[in-house]
Amino acid sequence: MELLQLIDELLMDAVVNAEIRGGPPTLGAAMRHAVFPGGARIRPRLCIAVAMACGETRSATAEAAATAIELLHCASLVHDDLPCFDNAPLRRGLPSVHAQFGERIAILAGDALIVLAFQMLGRGLVAVPERLPALLGIVARAVGMPNGICAGQAWESEAQVRLGEYQCAKTGALFAAATAAGALAAGADYERWRLLGERLGEAYQVADDVQDAAGDPALLGKPIGIDQSLGRPSSARELGLRGALERFNHLVEASVAAIPECAGRAQLTALIRAEALRLIPADVQARAA
Amino acid sequence: MELLQLIDELLMDAVVNAEIRGGPPTLGAAMRHAVFPGGARIRPRLCIAVAMACGETRSATAEAAATAIELLHCASLVHDDLPCFDNAPLRRGLPSVHAQFGERIAILAGDALIVLAFQMLGRGLVAVPERLPALLGIVARAVGMPNGICAGQAWESEAQVRLGEYQCAKTGALFAAATAAGALAAGADYERWRLLGERLGEAYQVADDVQDAAGDPALLGKPIGIDQSLGRPSSARELGLRGALERFNHLVEASVAAIPECAGRAQLTALIRAEALRLIPADVQARAA
Repeated sequence: MELLQLIDELLMDAVVNAEIRGGPPTLGAAMRHAVFPGGARIRPRLCIAVAMACGETRSATAEAAATAIELLHCASLVHDDLPCFDNAPLRRGLPSVHAQFGERIAILAGDALIVLAFQMLGRGLVAVPERLPALLGIVARAVGMPNGICAGQAWESEAQVRLGEYQCAKTGALFAAATAAGALAAGADYERWRLLGERLGEAYQVADDVQDAAGDPALLGKPIGIDQSLGRPSSARELGLRGALERFNHLVEASVAAIPECAGRAQLTALIRAEALRLIPADVQARAA
Repeated sequence: MELLQLIDELLMDAVVNAEIRGGPPTLGAAMRHAVFPGGARIRPRLCIAVAMACGETRSATAEAAATAIELLHCASLVHDDLPCFDNAPLRRGLPSVHAQFGERIAILAGDALIVLAFQMLGRGLVAVPERLPALLGIVARAVGMPNGICAGQAWESEAQVRLGEYQCAKTGALFAAATAAGALAAGADYERWRLLGERLGEAYQVADDVQDAAGDPALLGKPIGIDQSLGRPSSARELGLRGALERFNHLVEASVAAIPECAGRAQLTALIRAEALRLIPADVQARAA
């Protein structure tokens, strides 16, 4: 099965399980809307790809971790789009959750998706509970305080912010969780796999800044210029468009270099290069050069 | 050590651990504000009391569960107080989190407290990971979809609500998690302990409705009449003040009757009766009779 299809099936199972059995239907619909249709599902793909690169062909642990990580990513987008944050009317070309269902349901959908993520970890590791404390730690660290997504978001409310720390918390942390969790699922030394995720997360954030500064809103399915209008730290603003692209290319190479020794090194390298081309296509690179 | 003091120490450890190591200071302060000073800490006291009633004197599992459950309760209050929900300026006699720190930080504080709760479960059960999947399930069920706190809140946005289901999700679920988790920590058959929590949660919700309808705002530390002004399901409105008090007393007796056979039955009964008197003092009962 294609990785993307597997991940969508895992996510659909998780969401449908939360929806059924008589819960409030609007919240159920909002959770589904937050998760489907999805984006590139890069974090869960990365998680499962790392587990496979470490020699694990089909791992319930990697699948649970991948599901949880994508649910947490979706939850962060729902809260990020709220009126008091980005006030974004669109996400992936459709109304954002609060635009479609109202602010209350959007806040609750984010909350319920966070809970569901941790619930999936518990369910997925029933057969290997000895791995659960470490996996919980990896995932929680990526989204909570002091260095996860919530922390990254909260840095936007502080007067003094350092770009690196901010981006690391806001994006890098969940990428690092994806690679670490994939390695843990395969029984590998997962701390060695964090650097790859951190580098990739940084590359992803720079690409996002470039898109926000120079992307095509029709292709992105969301408005551009938001980071700029909100005065957020942005590598495109700090380094200029050309400098940001150079930084992006450097980070892609650093990611490839950060892959620890493993059986599936070649495939993982190919995945990273394909993903880099998807994030910033060659013609965009050429135009800025 | 007094149970309340133990619980406050556990919570302080959890919050301080999230605050330190360079996280954004405002979010750290908001999380602390959400958890301290506390209310009666009834849910974590109940969790540890059940573990003790089942013969467990000092259990890291019960302490982790108690901490997680109170953090989740505090998170739900922070989000519940937000402008789009209750728009409550006060909580426990102090400014609510959003009144003090703004809406963004309040949303993030709730999110980060949910994450911290699950993180505490992972940390607390490192020595007994085989109990972690069940404990994660108990706790997540109490706060997520389809029957936990998020679901209860979301029922307020539905046209058709049944009072019982609504109250069960909004309050009963976390009480049931507290008793079940306490029993699990002692190695008891935890499903048998859910009913006690459900009954107590229902009693607590009825007492809350009575306070909202007839309480003293100065003693409560928050405004009254909110449920009524928001047109929420309320047993005081449905049954009248006297009917609601009868229902409360009935639920307290049903709680005592629901305690499964255990070594500490007498102490647990005494705790429940003391708590009932705290919730609705004898003079209030007498005035309404």
